[in-house]
Amino acid sequence: MLIVPEREIANLMTRDVAFDAVEQVFAAMASDDAYNFPVVREAIGHEDALYGFKGGFDRAGLTLGLKAGGYWPHNLEKRGLINHQSTVFLFDPDTGMVKAMVGGNLLTALRTAAASSVSIKHLARKDAKVLGMIGAGHQATFQLRAALEQRTFDKVIGWNYHPEMLPNIEKVATEAGVPFEAVDLPGMRAADVIISITSAFGPSLMADHVSPGTHVACMGTDTKGKQEVEAALLARAAVFTDEVAQSVSIGEAQHAVAQGLIRDSDIAQLGAVINGSHPGRTSDDQITLFDGTGVGLQDLAVAAAVVDLAVAQGIAIEVDF
Amino acid sequence: MLIVPEREIANLMTRDVAFDAVEQVFAAMASDDAYNFPVVREAIGHEDALYGFKGGFDRAGLTLGLKAGGYWPHNLEKRGLINHQSTVFLFDPDTGMVKAMVGGNLLTALRTAAASSVSIKHLARKDAKVLGMIGAGHQATFQLRAALEQRTFDKVIGWNYHPEMLPNIEKVATEAGVPFEAVDLPGMRAADVIISITSAFGPSLMADHVSPGTHVACMGTDTKGKQEVEAALLARAAVFTDEVAQSVSIGEAQHAVAQGLIRDSDIAQLGAVINGSHPGRTSDDQITLFDGTGVGLQDLAVAAAVVDLAVAQGIAIEVDF
Repeated sequence: MLIVPEREIANLMTRDVAFDAVEQVFAAMASDDAYNFPVVREAIGHEDALYGFKGGFDRAGLTLGLKAGGYWPHNLEKRGLINHQSTVFLFDPDTGMVKAMVGGNLLTALRTAAASSVSIKHLARKDAKVLGMIGAGHQATFQLRAALEQRTFDKVIGWNYHPEMLPNIEKVATEAGVPFEAVDLPGMRAADVIISITSAFGPSLMADHVSPGTHVACMGTDTKGKQEVEAALLARAAVFTDEVAQSVSIGEAQHAVAQGLIRDSDIAQLGAVINGSHPGRTSDDQITLFDGTGVGLQDLAVAAAVVDLAVAQGIAIEVDF
Repeated sequence: MLIVPEREIANLMTRDVAFDAVEQVFAAMASDDAYNFPVVREAIGHEDALYGFKGGFDRAGLTLGLKAGGYWPHNLEKRGLINHQSTVFLFDPDTGMVKAMVGGNLLTALRTAAASSVSIKHLARKDAKVLGMIGAGHQATFQLRAALEQRTFDKVIGWNYHPEMLPNIEKVATEAGVPFEAVDLPGMRAADVIISITSAFGPSLMADHVSPGTHVACMGTDTKGKQEVEAALLARAAVFTDEVAQSVSIGEAQHAVAQGLIRDSDIAQLGAVINGSHPGRTSDDQITLFDGTGVGLQDLAVAAAVVDLAVAQGIAIEVDF
């Protein structure tokens, strides 16, 4: 079996490879060639940690396995370690034997950023010029860096609940040669694409902060109770997601569905747009919204890609298991 | 992190260590110091395989992780590999980082055999002399070998749907110096302890095949629909299990509960007997029945024990992950 340690991922993985892996597996999900298993997520009653497993199988890519790990909130403060800790395990679908173990921390950030990028590629207007960011934490920098590659943006505008964090994303915009401006939430009306990446439990972006024709990617809501945007925005938008079952239970759509504003059947898989079986955006003034909940298959797809890169570059550690 | 490959397990692990690990974790479960996570088990639609995850956390032993793997029915015939394939992954509960990877195939057989042994130690009459075996497959040999260490048995009697397989268990009995006799199912009335370890979907052992005072360990039923003994036997017996939730849903008790013969509350945890919080067997003519469904914590417990042995013997492979 092959091992790719966390420390090698940054040198191996590129945003392009992550993008392609996520785009392909979203397409496979929409064609019923790939599916996610039920998610296990447990508050283990130790170190206030959340721990669990996200597994799946991609019959098209022959990728089987899981991401295991979770959130240890005291890691950084107590031990100087990242709070989000995860590891991906890949299995041979022909035999059930373990095939690879891959550090999952950086990969999780890259696959999440790739998901919103894929949504921008397929749903945002081609002439989108202004990119709005809601959230300015560590994950927001990955989101912004990946999004800037999808359209010729000439401006980034940003809002964060803690404005002192905005320099995090300003730095990324500046490095990409795009001017940055801090705005208030109504200022998001100037954006053609908005990425929301917070861990909020109440809406920041309201329906009337979003102009016609905008594409909104909601990337922060992955748990019951979390919410980033006003539920009414989903009723006004064409709503897409990675996985409908997660979208309506733990994703951004949970609130609009609970309030009866939209139904499960109003939500389309982004993979169907990639496949061409759904038209995607149908007019220039339509609001499109991608509810990115994060599925195990994304983790498996980027991990499988990084194993291939590690093998090609002679970096994978081989263990006779 | 540490790796203990499958090939090392046979030299490292002993039945004693497996017994102690399983006995301790059953006790921890009954004290609410350890709990199992929801089981994921999926027919993946490839190679007719069943694949999934059994995880858990033992706060007492600080063991966190999962067993991943499953059943690949064509492995042996197509590839000369074992059909049951599994791997155990242990995590550091203080940080969420992966700690060890351990081959899980032999460990699964040993922990399952340890479970029935633990039930015999705590529930069978001290003067038990005749051990009855229902089932004569590969797993039955592990069950028999472990059970023979729990009482001074002077005879093994056995029945199998395919009688030509009985020499498998006869060999184990003979090696232990105990005479073996093939019997029909009513012949099981002579047994003081009966272990049933089949993959049947209908009862073999009927209530009137079991004499007063017998301890029955049902070890084969781990899926909805499977059944080894007549449901009426559970109504007549004091019923114990590893985990009540599994016992009534995928274990042997599923049928008696579905038929209204017993209720969830009639089933006790074997761990409570180990802890001393349940009296266990209360008379010499009581029938006791252990429904061994197999829980993730058993896998984690034996894997953690084998990692300690591997480290002590300098056999563990260390990888800088």
